[in-house]
Amino acid sequence: MDLATIIGLAAGAAVIAVAILMGGSVTQFVNLPSVLIVVGGGMAATLIRFPIAGVASAFMIGGKVAFIHKKVEPRELITRIAEMGDVVRRNGPLGLESMEIDEPYLMKGSQLIADGYDGAFIRESMELERDQYLTRLAEGQRVFKSLGDAAPAFGMIGTLVGLVQLLANMDDPSTIGPAMAVALLTTLYGAVLANLVCLPMADKLTAKLGAEEINQTLIIDGIMSIRDGKSPNIIREMLVAYLPEKQRGELVPEAA
Amino acid sequence: MDLATIIGLAAGAAVIAVAILMGGSVTQFVNLPSVLIVVGGGMAATLIRFPIAGVASAFMIGGKVAFIHKKVEPRELITRIAEMGDVVRRNGPLGLESMEIDEPYLMKGSQLIADGYDGAFIRESMELERDQYLTRLAEGQRVFKSLGDAAPAFGMIGTLVGLVQLLANMDDPSTIGPAMAVALLTTLYGAVLANLVCLPMADKLTAKLGAEEINQTLIIDGIMSIRDGKSPNIIREMLVAYLPEKQRGELVPEAA
Amino acid sequence: MDLATIIGLAAGAAVIAVAILMGGSVTQFVNLPSVLIVVGGGMAATLIRFPIAGVASAFMIGGKVAFIHKKVEPRELITRIAEMGDVVRRNGPLGLESMEIDEPYLMKGSQLIADGYDGAFIRESMELERDQYLTRLAEGQRVFKSLGDAAPAFGMIGTLVGLVQLLANMDDPSTIGPAMAVALLTTLYGAVLANLVCLPMADKLTAKLGAEEINQTLIIDGIMSIRDGKSPNIIREMLVAYLPEKQRGELVPEAA
Amino acid sequence: MDLATIIGLAAGAAVIAVAILMGGSVTQFVNLPSVLIVVGGGMAATLIRFPIAGVASAFMIGGKVAFIHKKVEPRELITRIAEMGDVVRRNGPLGLESMEIDEPYLMKGSQLIADGYDGAFIRESMELERDQYLTRLAEGQRVFKSLGDAAPAFGMIGTLVGLVQLLANMDDPSTIGPAMAVALLTTLYGAVLANLVCLPMADKLTAKLGAEEINQTLIIDGIMSIRDGKSPNIIREMLVAYLPEKQRGELVPEAA
Amino acid sequence: MDLATIIGLAAGAAVIAVAILMGGSVTQFVNLPSVLIVVGGGMAATLIRFPIAGVASAFMIGGKVAFIHKKVEPRELITRIAEMGDVVRRNGPLGLESMEIDEPYLMKGSQLIADGYDGAFIRESMELERDQYLTRLAEGQRVFKSLGDAAPAFGMIGTLVGLVQLLANMDDPSTIGPAMAVALLTTLYGAVLANLVCLPMADKLTAKLGAEEINQTLIIDGIMSIRDGKSPNIIREMLVAYLPEKQRGELVPEAA
Repeated sequence: MDLATIIGLAAGAAVIAVAILMGGSVTQFVNLPSVLIVVGGGMAATLIRFPIAGVASAFMIGGKVAFIHKKVEPRELITRIAEMGDVVRRNGPLGLESMEIDEPYLMKGSQLIADGYDGAFIRESMELERDQYLTRLAEGQRVFKSLGDAAPAFGMIGTLVGLVQLLANMDDPSTIGPAMAVALLTTLYGAVLANLVCLPMADKLTAKLGAEEINQTLIIDGIMSIRDGKSPNIIREMLVAYLPEKQRGELVPEAA
Repeated sequence: MDLATIIGLAAGAAVIAVAILMGGSVTQFVNLPSVLIVVGGGMAATLIRFPIAGVASAFMIGGKVAFIHKKVEPRELITRIAEMGDVVRRNGPLGLESMEIDEPYLMKGSQLIADGYDGAFIRESMELERDQYLTRLAEGQRVFKSLGDAAPAFGMIGTLVGLVQLLANMDDPSTIGPAMAVALLTTLYGAVLANLVCLPMADKLTAKLGAEEINQTLIIDGIMSIRDGKSPNIIREMLVAYLPEKQRGELVPEAA
Repeated sequence: MDLATIIGLAAGAAVIAVAILMGGSVTQFVNLPSVLIVVGGGMAATLIRFPIAGVASAFMIGGKVAFIHKKVEPRELITRIAEMGDVVRRNGPLGLESMEIDEPYLMKGSQLIADGYDGAFIRESMELERDQYLTRLAEGQRVFKSLGDAAPAFGMIGTLVGLVQLLANMDDPSTIGPAMAVALLTTLYGAVLANLVCLPMADKLTAKLGAEEINQTLIIDGIMSIRDGKSPNIIREMLVAYLPEKQRGELVPEAA
Repeated sequence: MDLATIIGLAAGAAVIAVAILMGGSVTQFVNLPSVLIVVGGGMAATLIRFPIAGVASAFMIGGKVAFIHKKVEPRELITRIAEMGDVVRRNGPLGLESMEIDEPYLMKGSQLIADGYDGAFIRESMELERDQYLTRLAEGQRVFKSLGDAAPAFGMIGTLVGLVQLLANMDDPSTIGPAMAVALLTTLYGAVLANLVCLPMADKLTAKLGAEEINQTLIIDGIMSIRDGKSPNIIREMLVAYLPEKQRGELVPEAA
Repeated sequence: MDLATIIGLAAGAAVIAVAILMGGSVTQFVNLPSVLIVVGGGMAATLIRFPIAGVASAFMIGGKVAFIHKKVEPRELITRIAEMGDVVRRNGPLGLESMEIDEPYLMKGSQLIADGYDGAFIRESMELERDQYLTRLAEGQRVFKSLGDAAPAFGMIGTLVGLVQLLANMDDPSTIGPAMAVALLTTLYGAVLANLVCLPMADKLTAKLGAEEINQTLIIDGIMSIRDGKSPNIIREMLVAYLPEKQRGELVPEAA
């Protein structure tokens, strides 16, 4: 999923770059104060809406999810958890230590079992971590949405400021065109920031939120079953019940 | 239903072509970079929102549904399934092999019965196929919707880029008009792409999604009843219960 | 209710006509290609969304409902049905043949009773007719809504086409004004078509849909009670239960 | 509450008047045909949506509610009803005749008790009156909302008509400015009508609708309890249950 | 949370100030009548929607919440309430008098216990205060939302008034630019007022409303438990049940 984000952002940037370069020089389109108005104004409006810590963590989690995070299919998770259950049944909890587990959240659960913590503690500390992660993800989604709404508004505010200055000093007609060009830049920046970055990012985080809620809840219950020494088949059957109906069908034949 | 799509697209294109030709030459309206900005930018924003595979399959399924797919009335399906039940009762499962069945999903179920698979396996593999098909259809709908939202935005971005270039270089007044004409082309492209293609297509896929969910669920239950050797009348009565209330009334008199 | 539609449309048209005539000649505002773009383009986008048959029937039913159809108050219906119940009690089913019944759907039910069909058949064939009528009404509502959304979009598309042509050929300044006037006509047509015709019509069909669902369901149950020879008072009491709570109060005092 | 409406309308009108007077003469802003287009067109679109009688009664009820109607607090009502219960207990139903009751709906109930009607009749005729009043209020809200949506649309239509006329006859450049000024007036009228009058009025009627539903239902039940000779304390306790939870807390301490 | 509001407002104001100062003098952007139109008009439309008292209290509560109010974490509250329970168990109700309690609402409850009021009275008077506070907060949210919707509309109305005046008197071309600059100021003011102040403030009050409802309900039940002499552990366990599921996990480990 991250590949699509990178390709999308690069393609979008390339498309706009080509459009700019074909018509002249890039310098006409670079204007630091305009960037300041759109990004700064959008951030200011977002800061009023959310606590500071939330805005900062939103960008980190947004970047992480969009560029680094790998999508994990629930059915791969279930297969993996069933394998872990098999290992524990044969080699005891310590057998998990020799398994390689890519998914960090599943790894953490595995470690807790191997360390011999009791069930209630494992469930509580994993639920705590899941809830904090989902809360951060949801806040990240709202921050990108808020920025995507505010950026075009501040783009328009910047253009209005430029227009007022331009209209108030029309002594030299030759400066009207370039001044208006600069005034329009904030509107352009706001439109690009919202439509190419913030709104698609918010949509991606929304989708991510749903997927992670399913996956992590599934991992918690899987870890609890492994710890209870349930058989791989029973674990698999139980976890399938966590999938939304549409994805369930895809797993059953494998289990049959 | 496909005929309406083709007529609609052709009529829409014709209407715009006439408008263009009456006012001058087509060449004024063809501008490859403008196409690149609107289509490329819209695709880039869509790529960030969805996995790559989903975008690709969305176009295939969208094209298939819009141009090739035939609308199947639930009541025709029920009549057909009842006939199949009659054949199985009289000639056994192998009797289905000699029947001609147009609807491919129903054909698949018929084949599974004729091949003698057990009930649980038939249901599971048909549900799996239905769920994957509906998921693809739903993703196709969201992709067209996203493209329909992004296209006008990138149309505006393209026009802003053109306006900034135009305003920054107003030395030769005679070039202002044609340059602005080119700048407006992206807005025009975005509006046509969204209002003539993407948004109507998304609406059509939404309608299709609802219809296919009813039809395929109905086929699954019909196939299960046929395999269990139920009588045509019982099959028909049971399947009528799957129809939304409004369509149900239309079938009952035929059954009476 | 039809009178309001006719007055509304006539008043709206008159208002616009006065505005046009006060400023000059009508001919400036008549432009066939502009009509083609807005109406043709809007119809094309609508055709992609709906099956052809649905679009055609939508206009027929829209016209019928808006101009001809008479609003029937549920309480008048109940009074009428109670009278019919009285007639059947005194003169038998054939007594209905001598009654004059304006409402065609009620007339049909009356005829079915007089013809001596059995209860299940009467209910089924009346429900079938009601469901088909409501489905057509709902489709009509969606078609007008879709046209009301598409018309302003194609109005803008037409204006953009005109602007591009105008800007690309600015050799003769004296033609700029008139050309721009023509370009704006499509936007004007789209705004009038959407705001004076399509959107109000869609709203009216929505209101109609709710009213007809109550009335026709009420008629079906009334007809069934008449056929069963229930007393007028019992019929009236039972039918009052079909009214939404707000309208119920208005009937009870009459019944008391 | 009426005071706020009058102050709001007066302040809004004053603000716009000041803006107009500071820049020149009022006559530039008075244009009868423009008023006709916006008000007439908006009314025409509204007439298509609603029956004529509904539109007329909407304005009467809107004016009455906004300017004359006094907001009645549910807790004052409950206190008043408990007092009435006390009077009836001590002096019998006729004792109500000597009480002064401001709220007309409560007055009517009091009269019905004093006149000795039986309980079922009192409830029925009061519910009938309440339902008709609420229906009229709801229709008034929808009419103002519809007008608030249509006015800006017809403002734009009027401006487009003016622009087309202006652009088609640009022979005398000195007339362009004033003609465009007149063309913009409809847009101005539409914006003022919608944002200062119709939409705030619709919001106020929505709030009123909720408040009146609570109050009148409360009065009906209070009147029934008075007629049954319940004690003031029991009446008060029972009526508190009709308040939404937030308002309930405010009453309990008084009752304690 | 207040810090973020102040930083946000200051940063937004600074960004706009920089944009203005870079292009010329501030005086071009200060225009009292324009402020009057946007703020006065927006307030007028808001006054029609709400009772006067509500508008006034909305600004006070909005300012208080945004700038002064400290966000209180539910888990800190629970810890604090458990401590109070411990004090009461050891030193009796009067022991609360020597505790320092920052949160005023909790302080009030503590005082009521120390004063020895009976349980029902404490609950009633605290619920009354909570409900009045939440009602004021909700009204504040709606007032800021209404102002945020009305400000841009009156900004546009102001610009239209200015444009009409400008276009009607175009004798001296040199005044056109400055006049248009002034006309655009109202649009600028409306956009800044809505996007930097009103809409973010409304969103913040919405978030606040949810948080305060949880906290104050939690305090009420905590105070009741303290008064009943429940043990700190039981109080903590019971109050955790009031947290939304996501926040609950964060507390349980502390309680374990």
